[in-house]
Parts: sequence; C-alpha cells; structure tokens
Amino acid sequence: MNAPDRLDPAKFAELLALTREPFPASRKAYLRGRLHPDLRVPVRDIALSNGEAVSVYDTSGPYTDAGASIDVRRGLEALRAPWIAARGDTEAYAGRAPQSLDDGTRDEAHARLAALRLEAAGLQRTPRRARPGANVTQMHYARRGIVTPEMEYVAIRENGRREWMADYLGDTTREQRLAGNPMGAQIPRIITPEFVRDEVARGRAIIPANINHPEIEPMAIGRNFLVKINANIGNSAVTSSIDEEVEKLVWAIRWGADNVMDLSTGRNIHTTRDWIVRNSPVPIGTVPIYQALEKVGGVAEDLTWEIFRDTLIEQAEQGVDYFTIHAGVRLAYIHLTAGRRTGIVSRGGSIMAKWCITHHKESFLYTHFEDICDIMKQYDVSFSLGDGLRPGSGADANDEAQFAELRTLGELTQVAWKHDVQTMIEGPGHVPMHMIQANMVEQLKHCHEAPFYTLGPLTIDIAPGYDHIASAIGAAMIGWFGTAMLCHVTPKEHLGLPDRDDVKAGIIAYKIAAHAADVAKGHPSARARDDALSKARFEFRWSDQFNLSLDPDTARDFHDETLPKDSSKEAHFCSMCGPKFCSMKITQDVRDYAARRGVSEEVALQQGLREKSAEFRDAGGEFYIPIRPVTGATSS
Amino acid sequence: MNAPDRLDPAKFAELLALTREPFPASRKAYLRGRLHPDLRVPVRDIALSNGEAVSVYDTSGPYTDAGASIDVRRGLEALRAPWIAARGDTEAYAGRAPQSLDDGTRDEAHARLAALRLEAAGLQRTPRRARPGANVTQMHYARRGIVTPEMEYVAIRENGRREWMADYLGDTTREQRLAGNPMGAQIPRIITPEFVRDEVARGRAIIPANINHPEIEPMAIGRNFLVKINANIGNSAVTSSIDEEVEKLVWAIRWGADNVMDLSTGRNIHTTRDWIVRNSPVPIGTVPIYQALEKVGGVAEDLTWEIFRDTLIEQAEQGVDYFTIHAGVRLAYIHLTAGRRTGIVSRGGSIMAKWCITHHKESFLYTHFEDICDIMKQYDVSFSLGDGLRPGSGADANDEAQFAELRTLGELTQVAWKHDVQTMIEGPGHVPMHMIQANMVEQLKHCHEAPFYTLGPLTIDIAPGYDHIASAIGAAMIGWFGTAMLCHVTPKEHLGLPDRDDVKAGIIAYKIAAHAADVAKGHPSARARDDALSKARFEFRWSDQFNLSLDPDTARDFHDETLPKDSSKEAHFCSMCGPKFCSMKITQDVRDYAARRGVSEEVALQQGLREKSAEFRDAGGEFYIPIRPVTGATSS
Repeated sequence: MNAPDRLDPAKFAELLALTREPFPASRKAYLRGRLHPDLRVPVRDIALSNGEAVSVYDTSGPYTDAGASIDVRRGLEALRAPWIAARGDTEAYAGRAPQSLDDGTRDEAHARLAALRLEAAGLQRTPRRARPGANVTQMHYARRGIVTPEMEYVAIRENGRREWMADYLGDTTREQRLAGNPMGAQIPRIITPEFVRDEVARGRAIIPANINHPEIEPMAIGRNFLVKINANIGNSAVTSSIDEEVEKLVWAIRWGADNVMDLSTGRNIHTTRDWIVRNSPVPIGTVPIYQALEKVGGVAEDLTWEIFRDTLIEQAEQGVDYFTIHAGVRLAYIHLTAGRRTGIVSRGGSIMAKWCITHHKESFLYTHFEDICDIMKQYDVSFSLGDGLRPGSGADANDEAQFAELRTLGELTQVAWKHDVQTMIEGPGHVPMHMIQANMVEQLKHCHEAPFYTLGPLTIDIAPGYDHIASAIGAAMIGWFGTAMLCHVTPKEHLGLPDRDDVKAGIIAYKIAAHAADVAKGHPSARARDDALSKARFEFRWSDQFNLSLDPDTARDFHDETLPKDSSKEAHFCSMCGPKFCSMKITQDVRDYAARRGVSEEVALQQGLREKSAEFRDAGGEFYIPIRPVTGATSS
Repeated sequence: MNAPDRLDPAKFAELLALTREPFPASRKAYLRGRLHPDLRVPVRDIALSNGEAVSVYDTSGPYTDAGASIDVRRGLEALRAPWIAARGDTEAYAGRAPQSLDDGTRDEAHARLAALRLEAAGLQRTPRRARPGANVTQMHYARRGIVTPEMEYVAIRENGRREWMADYLGDTTREQRLAGNPMGAQIPRIITPEFVRDEVARGRAIIPANINHPEIEPMAIGRNFLVKINANIGNSAVTSSIDEEVEKLVWAIRWGADNVMDLSTGRNIHTTRDWIVRNSPVPIGTVPIYQALEKVGGVAEDLTWEIFRDTLIEQAEQGVDYFTIHAGVRLAYIHLTAGRRTGIVSRGGSIMAKWCITHHKESFLYTHFEDICDIMKQYDVSFSLGDGLRPGSGADANDEAQFAELRTLGELTQVAWKHDVQTMIEGPGHVPMHMIQANMVEQLKHCHEAPFYTLGPLTIDIAPGYDHIASAIGAAMIGWFGTAMLCHVTPKEHLGLPDRDDVKAGIIAYKIAAHAADVAKGHPSARARDDALSKARFEFRWSDQFNLSLDPDTARDFHDETLPKDSSKEAHFCSMCGPKFCSMKITQDVRDYAARRGVSEEVALQQGLREKSAEFRDAGGEFYIPIRPVTGATSS
C-alpha cells in the first residue's frame, strides 16, 4: 500500500512543467514599493481582447513567471533575506543536529533515508534565530511603530492595481446600491502600509513569516483584508510521495491557495518539509504534534514536553510559518465530548485528549504555553490555536466543549500577545447554517479580534463526495461574517486522501467562497473583476470571459464541448439559445430604444401607466390598458 | 451541428437501465393514506448494517422500483386518473388538432416528423378539461375545504417515516441547541392533510398537478415544506435528441429533482414534450413563449396573443403542470434596464421586451392576464410568474427594474388568486450574499407569501465552470430565508448545454443547498439523516455512510481510490490517519474515561480548574495549574 518515496523524475518534470504554464493571456508583473523601493509585489495582468487590462491577486509565485528559472532541488530565491539581515536582530547558528527519527524511521531504513536526504542536500539552509533577548515577530515591530517591508508588501498586494478598477466601479448609484455589508469589519478604501502595521500591532491581522522562510511573498490574514484560503497537502501513513507533495504545493498556489499546510503523518516527514518549505512562496503551516507523535511510535501517552519542544525547534529552523497548537484541549473539557454524536474529530485534539486522560494531567501544551511563546518569538512563527474540540457533525455544533475551548483560546491569545507572538484562532468544522454566525460572534467576543481561521464549516453531513460544496456554503457565510482565512475542504473529505484534481476542486470552491465573502463585506478591490467578466459576457467576448475566470481551462473546455469551433468564441450568441435568438442581442435593442425615446419620457410613461393601473384597480374592470404616448417630455 | 432526433435504441436502453438501478441497500416502499386509503406514497428505505432502517424522501418515481414495468413508449401509469375522475368536474374532449408547426418544422420536413410522431403514438392521451363553469385547481378545492388525495399525499410525503427519526432526535438538550431558525416560516411538527389544504388555500403553497398529467406523484412547493429543487432539461437549436431528454429526466429525478422544466427551444418541441410528460412522475414546467417563438420563426415581434393562447392550450392538453409566464415585463419597466451591466438576461424577458418596444405597446401577457387565468383553471396549470428582468450579474442585483417587476408579479398574484389559480414567483439570478435577504423580504412583502422559486442566486460572477457552487451558496441562504424551490444551476451555466454528468452535478449541489436550508429552518424531518450518517461515520460503518449519502456511488468510489480493499470498509480507521492512529478510536477512550470517572466528578474538576484559573489570572503568575482530584463526587 505504500507509495515510493520519489516519483519517476521524468513524470515529475512533466507534471511540474504543466503547473508552471502561465495562465492564458496573462503576464506576471511586479509592483514597486515606495517606503521600500526594492519590493516587487506580484500581480497577474490579464490582457483583454478589447484592449483593457485586468490585474488580479497572484498567489502562484515565481512558478508562473516565464522569466524565472526554478530548480526544485535548490529551492526558490530568498527574497526576504536582505530585509531580515537589515534588521540586524538575528543570528545564524548551527541548529539542531538531524536525527533519523525526524523522518519517522529507525535505523533499519537508514540507507534509504540517507539517499533521500542527499537529494535534499541542496535545500539545506543555515538556520537563523533572534539574537539573545530579541523578538523578531512582525507584531513586535508593528508595536514599536516599524513599518517592515513585509507590511508594505502586504499593503500593495491587497490594493492591487486600482487604476483599471475605477473604470468598473465609477458608477456612484450602482456602487451605493451594491455597497457591502462589512458586518463590523473596518476596511479602508486604500490599504496603506501604516494601516497594515496598525492591524498587526493590535493583533487583528497576522503576517506569517518565519525568518527561516525568506522565500515567501508576504501576505496578511485578517478581517480587514481579502479573505484568504489555505490548502492542505501532506503525505500520510497510507499513500503519496515527496515529489507529489511538492507538485501539489505548486498546483495549489497556482489555483489560489494563499497558505499551505503540510499535514504529513507518514514517512520522511522532515525531508518532505525541506522540499516543501524551500519551494514555497506562500506561508507553510504544520501541526507539530503530528510529527512528535511519529517520534514516539504513534503512542499518544508517550508524548512529552521535551519531545514536543524539540519538534517545534526542528520545524522552526526549517522555516515553518505557523504552528497549529491544540493548547485549548484542557483536561477539564474532555468529558464534555463524551455525549457527542461524533466525539473528538480533530486529530491533534484526540492526541492531546488521549494524553490528558491517560495521565490525568493538564495538557503540556497548556502548561508550557509561555515556553512555546518563547520559541515562537525567536523565529516569528505564528500561532494557529487549534480547535481540538471542534464539532465533527452538525449534531455537535456550538456545544459546550467547543465553546469552552474557544474561551481558553481567547485567554491564550492574550498570553501570546504579551510576548508579541502573532496569533490566529482555528474554528469549525460542522455547523448548520443558522448556527454559523454565533461562532463568529463568540470568537470576536472571546478572542479579541485575533484572526479566525475556519475549516468550512460544513452545513450538512449527508454529502460525502461533495463536502467541498457543503462546506463552501458555510465558508462563504463565515467569511462574510468576519473569518479571515478559510481552510479548504476537498471532495475527498471524510473518504480518502485528495489527489491533484481534488485539491484543485477544493481550492476553486474556496476561492468562490472567499470571493463571495469579499464582495459581501465590500472589500474595495473585490468586485471589479466580477464586473469585468460580466461585461465580457454581455459583449460576447468569450475568451475574455474564460481568461477572467477562476479557472480559465475549465471554462474554455466546457464551452468548447458544445460549440467547438474557434470562430464561435467571437460569435454573438451563446450555446444555450442558439444562433437564431439571443437575449443579450435584444438588450442592445432595448438600449437603442431607451436612447431614442429618452429616458425621461419613459419615466413619464411609467408614471402614466401607474396612474392607469390605479384607475384600473379602482374601476375593478378590464385588464387591458391602452397606451397613450406621453408628449412634451424631454430627453435628459 | 444538429444531433439526430433519436439515439441508437440499444444505447438508449442501456442508459435507461443504468438510471433505473435501485440505490444500494435501498428498497422502495409505499406509505398508505388514511383519508384516502388507496394512496401509495413512495419512500426509499435504506437498510443499515447495524439493523437500523433509514427512510428518505424519494423523487425517483417507479423507475427505481424493481417491481415496476416501464415502457417509455407507453408512459407511466396514470395513478391520479381515478382521483380526477371521482371529482366529476372534468370532461374528455377532442382537443386541439396537431400541427406540424407545433414541432417547429414547416412542410419540407414532414416525412421525418410523421415518423417521429408515429413512434410517440403510444403516448397520446385524450385530453380533459374542466366542465363548463368548473374550476379544477387544487387551490379551488382547498378554498372550499376539500382535502384532496393530492393534499394527503403531500402530507404523508413531507412527514416521511418519523419512527426511525425519533431515535436520532430524542435528545432534548441537543435538539434545543440545534433548533432551527425558521426566519418566519411556520412549520408544524407533523404535517397534516388539513395543514396542506390550508397552505394551498391561502396561496402559501402550490401542488402543481395538471389534470392531464395523471402520472405524477404529487408534491408541494411552499415555505412551510421541505425546500424543493427543479432541474432544467430540454433540447436546443444547437444540440441534443428526444431520447437524451427523456433519459435526462429519469436521471434528474433519480438524483433528487422534485420538478423538471422542459426548456426545449429547437426542433420537435411538441413531440419531445409528449415523451417527457408521459414518462414523468414529477411535475413538468415549461416556458410557453419559447415554443410560441418557434412558431413565428424566431421573430419576437411577430408574436401575437392568439398564437400564445393556442400554445398554452396545446401544452395544457399535453399535461404541463406549470407555465413560466413573464407577465411582469411591462413596457414601462424596459428602459430601466438600459443602464445595466448585463441588460435583460432572461430569454422570456428579452422576447417580451423586444415585442413591447417594437410595437410600443404593453405586453400581451399583462393585458391578457385574466384570459390566461381562465385557461389555467380549466386544467390546473400553475403560474410560475417569470422574472424576466432578473439581474444577469451581481452589478445589476436588486435594481429598480428587478423590484418594479417583482411588485407587478405581486399584483398579478392577487389576480391569479381571484381565479383560484395556483401561483409561484420566480426570483434571481445573480445577487451578492449581503443582498440576498432583501430579495426574500421584498418578495414576502409584495407577493403575499406566494412561494418563491429562485435560480441560485449566484453570489459572484467569476466562476464560470463552477457556477453550481457559486450559486449553491446563494441558494442555500435564500432557501433558509424562505424560498420554496431552487432552480438548479449546472457547471455548464453561461458556457454550454449541460450533459448528463452536469445535470447530476447541478442537482447534487442543489440537494445540498436545499437540505442545508431545511436543517437551518428546522424542518422536523430534515436533520435525522445527517445524524444517522454521522453516527455511521463515527462507528466506521463505511457502507452505511455511503448508502446514506446523497450520492452513494461517488462516496464509495472516492473511498475505494485510497483504500481499495473491501475489508477496509469495515476497518476502524480512515484513510486520512492510517491504521496506526485514529481520532475516532480515541473518542471511545474518552467515553470510557468519562464513564469511569463519572461526569459529575468531571464537572466538579472543571469547576476547580476554573477557580484555579481565576486565581492564576489574579496572581498574574505561573501558567501551570496543579491538578487536585476532586473527591466526594458521585457518578451520575
């Protein structure tokens, strides 16, 4: 059942070439910084057939830059290295000695592991950490009033190119009608570097950016920014190989993953992570307890603080940007799950519950929380405080176990902030629609506006095979209500491990949810792309419609199934109504008509008809209303 | 580009056999009536591996009944015929003489058409209509206090088998926590036939049931019932054949379509409809203006009331259960669309707009609305008042054109109700999330609680290829808010004509949305299935999990991709965590632990920890809290 450690190199190269292909009609461009002129913030410019250009947020990193040379055996360029060096508060050091146990194997498999590690040799970096007494978190800088390059990068990235958007959003009446409902968010028209700093300082946003992951293109997670999505990758005890995971990473960011979590649980965890982190332009999160558990042979009760601590340092040195830590699974809450329909479904939560009840002791994650903070701030690893007691079914939603843990996560947030450690809070899970808002309300109340990061939530339980849809509904809603990042759910959720297509399906579903949330909450750079696509649709610019969509390949393929000729892409009809009749065409007649007759005449006419209609109702008579053209109206 | 009129018969038979296969571990059963003992209301009983049986709503008709013999060339059994006859208010009559123009062809194609019609000869029925002066609508009966067999059928169907649900919904604390938020709906715990009558009488629900469609299994569309979904089929000028449409119908109801609309616009419209109606156990809707347009060669301005009226009678005689009529597209509203991003996107709306502006006259659908009512009540065809001015993009959502039309639909509803004609109202379309609720509020306000029937709405515009997801988000929300029926959107929306797989994908997405809405609004027969599946999931009863899902085939296939062995379906681990470690397994330990220690002791312990925690906060000191077992507690 186990997969090989490595794919056939030719197959890997082929897959990677595919995922590196630039998007149709698209060109990667870079926006410059003002405070930090060396910043090069990526956007994807889409050239439309009518001469317009539309520019969109781009998570795909250098992979879609035709000019970038990539060697996955050497990793990406360390673009943040000079920024980190310039701050002068870190030092290189020897780092922790590698152990074969880090890769979950004992001596017997050593030869194979040695060969694997040799292949990853080009990916080794000398780790850095804070100089003694220093704190290198973005939150620490922010609170001291420093606008870091990372913060300006984020500001530029959130704004995007606003010039082209003005053409779409210029209609004041329309924009008033469509004004978002921010549900308490406070999103300025223009995101300034100072605004980013302020959001990070008050803990309302995080910029996950381990100093040992200088390859990232910084991004922010916070309620007053674009809603982000996370994709999970990772091998497991059952299947998948290292190369597949790297390819999945590149594939995931191609389709829009803002963050990737490596949830590996099987063999070669350490080495897989080297490959992933060194090749990732997006922040990488992990659940360190997974690896710690591998180190104790899968026996939860054998876990110790020392093994866990060592694993944190191991991963921090490698450059992991945020850790999921289930420190809210306290001994006293565990019995609250006993009557649940589906008990504890978080893997990390289960591990800690098992540990707590076996020893009948408070969780070492909770008791050592400040020790963990001390590690986090030396590398700027962010907390993702795990919801180990999240509901695993609608039946268990919003119960006392879940909310007791949430309140504890709120307490821990304040402890983390005392250390200037960036923190976000994980959330459910499975929640019926009408109970979603309570999750956001409770989180805001108890966690002091620290960013919320939810898994879905799934709104129903009867859709295995389609849980990306069942959960995109909940994700869109909770995103609108204030959740800052949505963890994708793939169609394979509850059934098996996602493959490449599943990861893409999950990501697209979540891009939809996140974008729906951005439009609803009124993020100023969200809606223009919808308008550009709608205009292209209305004008039968088929290729533009495809190229502006979240997945141009699929849109084009679906169109071509019905109307395979290239010429039909310029045709002024769509396949639904056929060439003889088209509703879009008729609208042009309506416009000509309105222009010819003058809108004010129409208004007068309408007025007349309304009066007639009232007469008619009063008379209780015939339904037919004779039309009398209204004279004397002028066109406006 | 044109497809053949008929599929290869062998291929058709093969397809149909596939769609007739009973669902795994499922048996069709029938519930008996009490007021009308001859009623046989279908349910699907799913046998679980632990001996339990779960019974679910079943739209698939006799096709999934292994005992039913089906001949698509003769049509289904006319189960309502005796009920209609017993009422004694209808008469058989010769009906309208068939014309070749009904199938959109002129003389030149006559031979081919004759052959086609010969094949459909076994599907011809003598039409019935109301005796002179009679009104045969369900609303008319309801208002006279008559509980028809159709109404009792609906009541039984909405309740389902409540016995098994009691086992799942028996926990009072849990049910209180999960109590739905009905958003103004008034759903009783048990749906009685009298309740159905009352809902139909006051216009809050409809039972689409043309007396010339005696083959249907009655169902209700209304805010206080389960949320229904509609699937669209229909050939077009560009592609598809008659058999494909019939097979699509059977396929659509297999996956849960409660209604099907035949939106054919191409050749053989009349004959295709014979096939569809005669083989459909679900209500069939059409947009008669589509066929009328074919009769005038696609030239909208050549339409006349006489041609339209003749088409209504033609379709009413065939047994169409509801007509979409765009009578709210009034001359005076048309100019309101001139400044829109995407003008008029409803095909029917465009046709009428074109007619109105060409003649500069009020729409004949509006002026002849009472004449239309006179036809509807002779056959019990329900109105689906079309939203011809619905927005075609988020940019046009909730604008004056849309709401002006909605108010007119409200006026027309009252006219229809004056004639006791059953009526529902169509709604958008494209609406950003934060603007969805206003649609429901306006509809309830202006349309007097007549059932709302929406197309999505799509929450964003940038997801062509995935609009089933972009719209399922909006559909779930508006369903929760009170929409009674959701028109599915397939992945091919905006791009091409859906094939079989697309229709299924759209239906499943909409079953998810409808079910999410039912759970949220607290329909008493909604949530138990989720609980049954969650319990199966928790107990690693894999096959039960698949069989309880909306699409057992896909769930099973996805599982088998990762864990192909049959034995693993009984395995107490899932493919995500592997055999060594499993969160579900740990939960059992938690339960044992809680049971062993006694829950009340735990509560006391928790209390102690909370006090400790408060002490700790007050002291501002160490984080570690020593555990002191609380003595003296008794187990409950």
